[in-house]
Amino acid sequence: MKKLKLGVIGAGRIGKVHIATLVQSVPQAEVVALAETNPAVASEVAKMFGITSVFTTYMDVIRHPDVEAVVICSPTDTHAKYIVDAANAGKHIFCEKPVDLSLDVIKGAIKAVEKAGVKLMVGFNRRFDPNFSKIRQLVATGKIGDPHILKITSRDPAPPPAEYSAVSGGMFMDMTIHDFDMARFITGSEVTEVYAKSAVLVDPEIGKAGDIDTAVITLSFANGAIGVIDNSRKAVYGYDQRVEIFGSKGMACADNDFPDNHRYYTDDGIHGSLPLNFFMDRYLDAYANEMKVFCDAVLNDKQPPVTGTDGLRSVLIAMAAKKSYLENRPVKLSEIES
Amino acid sequence: MKKLKLGVIGAGRIGKVHIATLVQSVPQAEVVALAETNPAVASEVAKMFGITSVFTTYMDVIRHPDVEAVVICSPTDTHAKYIVDAANAGKHIFCEKPVDLSLDVIKGAIKAVEKAGVKLMVGFNRRFDPNFSKIRQLVATGKIGDPHILKITSRDPAPPPAEYSAVSGGMFMDMTIHDFDMARFITGSEVTEVYAKSAVLVDPEIGKAGDIDTAVITLSFANGAIGVIDNSRKAVYGYDQRVEIFGSKGMACADNDFPDNHRYYTDDGIHGSLPLNFFMDRYLDAYANEMKVFCDAVLNDKQPPVTGTDGLRSVLIAMAAKKSYLENRPVKLSEIES
Amino acid sequence: MKKLKLGVIGAGRIGKVHIATLVQSVPQAEVVALAETNPAVASEVAKMFGITSVFTTYMDVIRHPDVEAVVICSPTDTHAKYIVDAANAGKHIFCEKPVDLSLDVIKGAIKAVEKAGVKLMVGFNRRFDPNFSKIRQLVATGKIGDPHILKITSRDPAPPPAEYSAVSGGMFMDMTIHDFDMARFITGSEVTEVYAKSAVLVDPEIGKAGDIDTAVITLSFANGAIGVIDNSRKAVYGYDQRVEIFGSKGMACADNDFPDNHRYYTDDGIHGSLPLNFFMDRYLDAYANEMKVFCDAVLNDKQPPVTGTDGLRSVLIAMAAKKSYLENRPVKLSEIES
Amino acid sequence: MKKLKLGVIGAGRIGKVHIATLVQSVPQAEVVALAETNPAVASEVAKMFGITSVFTTYMDVIRHPDVEAVVICSPTDTHAKYIVDAANAGKHIFCEKPVDLSLDVIKGAIKAVEKAGVKLMVGFNRRFDPNFSKIRQLVATGKIGDPHILKITSRDPAPPPAEYSAVSGGMFMDMTIHDFDMARFITGSEVTEVYAKSAVLVDPEIGKAGDIDTAVITLSFANGAIGVIDNSRKAVYGYDQRVEIFGSKGMACADNDFPDNHRYYTDDGIHGSLPLNFFMDRYLDAYANEMKVFCDAVLNDKQPPVTGTDGLRSVLIAMAAKKSYLENRPVKLSEIES
Repeated sequence: MKKLKLGVIGAGRIGKVHIATLVQSVPQAEVVALAETNPAVASEVAKMFGITSVFTTYMDVIRHPDVEAVVICSPTDTHAKYIVDAANAGKHIFCEKPVDLSLDVIKGAIKAVEKAGVKLMVGFNRRFDPNFSKIRQLVATGKIGDPHILKITSRDPAPPPAEYSAVSGGMFMDMTIHDFDMARFITGSEVTEVYAKSAVLVDPEIGKAGDIDTAVITLSFANGAIGVIDNSRKAVYGYDQRVEIFGSKGMACADNDFPDNHRYYTDDGIHGSLPLNFFMDRYLDAYANEMKVFCDAVLNDKQPPVTGTDGLRSVLIAMAAKKSYLENRPVKLSEIES
Repeated sequence: MKKLKLGVIGAGRIGKVHIATLVQSVPQAEVVALAETNPAVASEVAKMFGITSVFTTYMDVIRHPDVEAVVICSPTDTHAKYIVDAANAGKHIFCEKPVDLSLDVIKGAIKAVEKAGVKLMVGFNRRFDPNFSKIRQLVATGKIGDPHILKITSRDPAPPPAEYSAVSGGMFMDMTIHDFDMARFITGSEVTEVYAKSAVLVDPEIGKAGDIDTAVITLSFANGAIGVIDNSRKAVYGYDQRVEIFGSKGMACADNDFPDNHRYYTDDGIHGSLPLNFFMDRYLDAYANEMKVFCDAVLNDKQPPVTGTDGLRSVLIAMAAKKSYLENRPVKLSEIES
Repeated sequence: MKKLKLGVIGAGRIGKVHIATLVQSVPQAEVVALAETNPAVASEVAKMFGITSVFTTYMDVIRHPDVEAVVICSPTDTHAKYIVDAANAGKHIFCEKPVDLSLDVIKGAIKAVEKAGVKLMVGFNRRFDPNFSKIRQLVATGKIGDPHILKITSRDPAPPPAEYSAVSGGMFMDMTIHDFDMARFITGSEVTEVYAKSAVLVDPEIGKAGDIDTAVITLSFANGAIGVIDNSRKAVYGYDQRVEIFGSKGMACADNDFPDNHRYYTDDGIHGSLPLNFFMDRYLDAYANEMKVFCDAVLNDKQPPVTGTDGLRSVLIAMAAKKSYLENRPVKLSEIES
Repeated sequence: MKKLKLGVIGAGRIGKVHIATLVQSVPQAEVVALAETNPAVASEVAKMFGITSVFTTYMDVIRHPDVEAVVICSPTDTHAKYIVDAANAGKHIFCEKPVDLSLDVIKGAIKAVEKAGVKLMVGFNRRFDPNFSKIRQLVATGKIGDPHILKITSRDPAPPPAEYSAVSGGMFMDMTIHDFDMARFITGSEVTEVYAKSAVLVDPEIGKAGDIDTAVITLSFANGAIGVIDNSRKAVYGYDQRVEIFGSKGMACADNDFPDNHRYYTDDGIHGSLPLNFFMDRYLDAYANEMKVFCDAVLNDKQPPVTGTDGLRSVLIAMAAKKSYLENRPVKLSEIES
């Protein structure tokens, strides 16, 4: 089997997820190099997963002669720069979301990728979740008819530290961005207008940091459908990720996944397990599927299913959502783009 | 058992539902008189349910010496007048929703009721559905903690004739009004602002009649919670009525009811029955519970759980929703009230 | 609407169920007479349901000129005698299960019915449960293919008093008899052999009374299928009534019914309501459907769907089950019949 | 991390499952040697999974100096011999089920293991399924109270070739043996008596080969509980593996696992995906958990949770089941043991 030789940049939380997935679950991948600014973390991760070339500087991975593609898992504010450098070096690129917090910077990165003729895939892993991809498939094959109403529930088990809000760009840019991409993915249509009703109900510190922790966001789509996303930073029962699409021919919905499906009946009621609580458990298969698709796209010269433009559009919607919540009015995406 | 002697005004669709329920499922009720403008319908219904006094004029029921309480099931534009006349005659009143399409007229009816010292209950039957009342109970007893997000799905199996829109006051006033009341009922909090995103996706004739058939409506509550209602006039799989409430301590949701719970496994998948398709089937128990509660309130001199004010508030929200959709902006209820 | 005039014999627990059902939910029925040996009970029930002719002697009901059909709800040991008397008086008969504990007596009753040319229907109410009748319909229309395996779970919320065992004929005759009938109903095939493994695990007093409270019963069917019934006299979580049929083309199963379908998510798990706990709640619709079918059979001269032979076969299986458990070996029904 | 060096014997279907699992999902395992009688298969599998030492003779693996433990995946009739040889060579042993079809041979193997002081674990993978282990945990912690009734449903998607029956020892020894082990595992009690009602309903060729394809098997347990297993060689809807345990304090049940949890509502009903169809998909996690437990037992000198005695008991029950079906009577395990 032909294998794709990959270099990973960044061995933080999501970096480790991708390395473990690539090593253990993606037969067509081989991780040959790792760059991580913290040398102790770098050597520990390299040892654990048998990576032979380890560096503290990202360019060493990009320049490494064996590396055919890079997986960018460094902080958001480095994404675009690393994309450009990798593209200029002729390396294919997988980059975590969001690409950047600035539209111009994202556009610059996309331009560099196009000029270099390399492939760029953005890490919207949820598209590769078996439940959500089944829903998309039902829509794409016309089983739902014309989409009328999309509903996405996306709630985290616990909020990040309040100080994280400043770095991450806030809830819409950090968390809801997945749902914005999911909205485009499921409906197959572009979002044209956003109305975001938000609140600070979970933790006042988040509010003090200028962010919100609860939201209901209405989306208008180019195809006429209407969508709604509901978000909370804290669901005491765990990670809650559901999708429903309603159309002229029917409705399809996907529930959470669970660690087991037992039911326990007592004189007190019927009881069951909580949903898989952590994104790495819930999206274990999704991460593997995502990387298989990326390797396949590079190895067999196909267009990756999640492009730089997808990365751009989700950021655009997040910006519109933020403006909407600040001004308490629906905001058209055309306002942001111009 | 002491029975309440009732007179019913109007033997159309909802009138027949109430008569059948009262006769067959409410032991403490006795239907002694009926008024129906169509004499043929009147005599047929009276015969079917053993009602001895039948009239074509509503005042004959109100004036009937045996009648202790009236059940108003006539067209919306007669509700307020009949309430006033019944109150002036000292009769207790159950009135179908909406009370009226005008706030002033509703207020006038409420004033007449208060002056007469009779009881008025408005027909928001869904509050008495076993599923939804269980959800309300979990909220009321603090099991959910502070409510953060409310979700109501409410979809009809088929739209009414397009010409009905003019008479009914439109989708928000005719259909969503139930969901507006449900929103107040479940959260136990008042709606303060509404944003309605609407569309005509089911039937262009509805649009030509100036109405809409699809909507996603965001609600802000006085207690800080955010709510969303999604509506469609046509779900091909039937009547879809679900509720979900998410709060600081947990989440509770209620699904549709089904004619049976069978599962059928073939080489083609797993199959089950569609939800109960018609409001009379789905809300059979709710209608009976509602009337039992009304009879109990009158017989035992209790405050009915759904008051004239509840009728007023739901109309107010519907008006704000309509204004919001026409102007594509969030509308505060205080705008409408003043 | 033509109504059937009925006389009820016995106003104990099941008698009250039938009277309430007939009065409130069966429009084509009219209860005109009641016989009950306890005069206080008789007059109370008669008053509650508006029955004008009340007697303490069953023959007064049978002889009553207005009575077209009798509903026999008296103790088991009177069933057959009352059937014979009613048949001789030319009255149609609905009789509770079991018809009798003796095969010869049952045969005698059936003979009297046949001779008189009246209709006899035996009260296996579960056949008319919407879930189970849906399962039967799937089998009858060939959707399951050839039946291979039948599974019935039937567990009571609490055992009857130990002394009841002697009167009732024991668990197989009193409780499992419903499941034996269900087995024949769902498969559409006769039971040919029974193996009953039983135990006293719930209450030692039941064992002292010579009865059992827990059982797993294997059934062989004439069509080659194999079935299994599992019984307990005490499920702490309530009344548990489920059916599953597996065949060459698929599988169908029916679950319990619930008072509501809410789900409640906390940090402790997901919780739901227990099944409907009492046979009158669970089989409310079944009792009404059963009586409608009986009235329809008499009024329109149709064969009732549950005949005297059905009553006989279920007793036969119960006898074979008892013999099997006493001798710990499979027992063929032909052994009992001869 | 200390790794256990393993040699695998046999690279047929189950051998490949174990090798893939060990290589991809068991970090504490290292497969250093493989024996497979078919050289082409051997070299293909070795190459695919990076195994450096490949042989055609099993003793080469057992004797290999690096091999600390062997995984026996060869045909059933070689299991016991290989166990003895491995034990004599001082190697720890994981062996697929059944250990052998003869009780004396199994006892001999166990004796050799005990004498050598090595560890032996038998491959009852289903104990390590997350659903079933949750059920066991509820029983083991007393949440069910005293077990009264155990129900196991176990149906294969398609029968093996009829000629396989002779080699495999028949359905009870090949397929139901998993359920016999599950019965002991879930209840934590020994089976004392078996009654097997069997039939040939799927494929007459299986009957001609002297085997059966459908069965309902009643089990009596030492603790007084009663169990029932229902088996079919062919469920058209796929692999059906469910468990239910009922006791004095409650009931717990585990359902099948599914490739996704989507629900699709159309005007034709509600539809969902079929269960995971193949044992490798359904028990993917179970195989990994099983091997992790084995490696942990060897590396940390613990008693493996599935012993040679567990292997022996399940064979004993299978023998009793076969005798029961041939003689159509309940058979005590003491009859077989003596």
